[in-house]
Amino acid sequence: MNRVYNFSAGPSVLPVEVLETAKDEMLNWHGSGMSVMEMSHRSKWFEKIINDAEDSLRNLMNIPSNYKVLFLQGGAYTQFAMVPMNLMKKGKADYVNTGSWSKKAISEARKYGKVNVVASSEDLTYTYIPDLDPKTFSRDADYLYITTNNTIYGTRYTTLPNTGNVPLVADMSSNILSEVYDVSKFGLIFAGAQKNMGPAGVAVVIIREDLISDTLAEVPTMLQYKIHAENKSMYNTPPCYSIYICGLVYEWLKKLGGVSAMQKINEEKAAVLYDYLDNSNMFRGTVVKKDRSLMNIPFVTGKKEFDVQFVKEAVEKGFVNLKGHRSVGGMRASIYNAMPLEGVKALVNFMNDFEIKNS
Amino acid sequence: MNRVYNFSAGPSVLPVEVLETAKDEMLNWHGSGMSVMEMSHRSKWFEKIINDAEDSLRNLMNIPSNYKVLFLQGGAYTQFAMVPMNLMKKGKADYVNTGSWSKKAISEARKYGKVNVVASSEDLTYTYIPDLDPKTFSRDADYLYITTNNTIYGTRYTTLPNTGNVPLVADMSSNILSEVYDVSKFGLIFAGAQKNMGPAGVAVVIIREDLISDTLAEVPTMLQYKIHAENKSMYNTPPCYSIYICGLVYEWLKKLGGVSAMQKINEEKAAVLYDYLDNSNMFRGTVVKKDRSLMNIPFVTGKKEFDVQFVKEAVEKGFVNLKGHRSVGGMRASIYNAMPLEGVKALVNFMNDFEIKNS
Repeated sequence: MNRVYNFSAGPSVLPVEVLETAKDEMLNWHGSGMSVMEMSHRSKWFEKIINDAEDSLRNLMNIPSNYKVLFLQGGAYTQFAMVPMNLMKKGKADYVNTGSWSKKAISEARKYGKVNVVASSEDLTYTYIPDLDPKTFSRDADYLYITTNNTIYGTRYTTLPNTGNVPLVADMSSNILSEVYDVSKFGLIFAGAQKNMGPAGVAVVIIREDLISDTLAEVPTMLQYKIHAENKSMYNTPPCYSIYICGLVYEWLKKLGGVSAMQKINEEKAAVLYDYLDNSNMFRGTVVKKDRSLMNIPFVTGKKEFDVQFVKEAVEKGFVNLKGHRSVGGMRASIYNAMPLEGVKALVNFMNDFEIKNS
Repeated sequence: MNRVYNFSAGPSVLPVEVLETAKDEMLNWHGSGMSVMEMSHRSKWFEKIINDAEDSLRNLMNIPSNYKVLFLQGGAYTQFAMVPMNLMKKGKADYVNTGSWSKKAISEARKYGKVNVVASSEDLTYTYIPDLDPKTFSRDADYLYITTNNTIYGTRYTTLPNTGNVPLVADMSSNILSEVYDVSKFGLIFAGAQKNMGPAGVAVVIIREDLISDTLAEVPTMLQYKIHAENKSMYNTPPCYSIYICGLVYEWLKKLGGVSAMQKINEEKAAVLYDYLDNSNMFRGTVVKKDRSLMNIPFVTGKKEFDVQFVKEAVEKGFVNLKGHRSVGGMRASIYNAMPLEGVKALVNFMNDFEIKNS
């Protein structure tokens, strides 16, 4: 089979069991005589697929009944516009700038209202999560916006800001389902699927019902949460196959013991790599310890030629997509839910060999 | 294997060869060691996949070099907004109303400018394509908009309107690649993939370069053609797997002889069914002969209980999704490119048996 260890930041590794099931069901899903790609989205089969996916996600994240779950197109990028277009009723929102994705969300939101950046870690290349002081929050903001995990820089919030009555909005694209969150603390959570859930082409939105309301008339119909909520994500033809794969990933995660079991495994995986980095004489992590991500682990050797050589030799050994993001350099190992512990251990062994060979 | 004959209007039947390839490549695409779903969209592999898909489509449709090809999310529905948001520079457009989808496009366009409905076939439940008189067209329109094939009602344009210097915009969702079109006659063509190209979740836009320009600032970044054109559909993570399947379908079509060869097959397939309908004492088509679609063929028995019984018995025999759209009733056979001639012949045999049994 010759599968590689794929450390891509997204789209990224999926559970082998999920791919095997998708393979087996490709030409004939559950005796329907057709592929999931060929099904009418109005068929009883696809209705079961999307309902089961939603039920599984509700179960996994313990989503309260006063929240809607939507499966939408356009990725997190489209959410950068949908959030302000739908939620900025008073025309003002607070944002925390913890990296490229927050910055893009801020820039998009500025088209639709006043954006108050309450904190930023841009001063130190986003290597930490800034302290958040509720006294600096706008009292009359429509929401406060955070990026729970920062894919490029490898940071994550370990505590959530206390926003009082102001809804907390979170881009959870790169760590949804990787650790336990209390959904009731959020007004809205969104996440592109292509890191911890499935293939690119679907984004999940979890929104508290009282935040769903009519928008200004000029908001495109497809960008109105209300339309999608009223039509159970079926206003138009949804990205059926992507939703099907997400459903299989949710099933896999449930069998594994759910998000709390997954979190333990993720903590163990991350510890294996961070412990090595903290003890290595060649490699080191780039992020402030308290804010380290469980999902994306950037590291450097300090010597550019070693970085290049390492990435090259890694590929030859079957460890792929370890090159760091162009804005950070060095290396980055994305170890999402579907990356097994043995993959991280194998990577650390290889790093250790590389270190010995080159010191 | 027990595959059915799937007459779904969309998502719809795909070529078995394409599904077999997707199955074979599910866990390891071309020795990459990973599924296409797991690939970074910035990888050399996915770059090859999307470039090959674009090249194939250019080849199949003979797309001139001054047109961009975009693979976008949000389906045709999102195009209903993107077209006016990007093209209505003078604030006025002509639309032809030939069914539900035109009507939705018209309603969305009215949010962004003046819409002049130059012709409509609503008076006779959209059972024909209205004659178009260029004298009724607005001289100063930004574009004239048509729906080349009407999925629900089963009509299609057999001649294109002469719009002079006004760009012709076409929703070609349900008949793209089914017959030969001269792309140079259009300013913009769009199509959701889920009928003749691939799975739901990707829409193709073919746009003449001079129509790509800056929009008003308040247009969401993801709804700007310019952004996607400048970034070769990679401004954000594209729906990679859906694009991959489209590429496989394009390859299949090329091997089959391209669009002109496909058109001949489609004409033959449609003739088999229309000839039967025209000679049956029980079944009849619902559309004016000259405007009959090659893709979607609605028909009725004239007796509601026969319609219900027919659809029920058809399912038992493995002919599925023949129930007509709720707005038309009766039956509809969608016979897209991937429906083989033998499927249509088998359907006609079954219809004939049903007719004999029940007369």
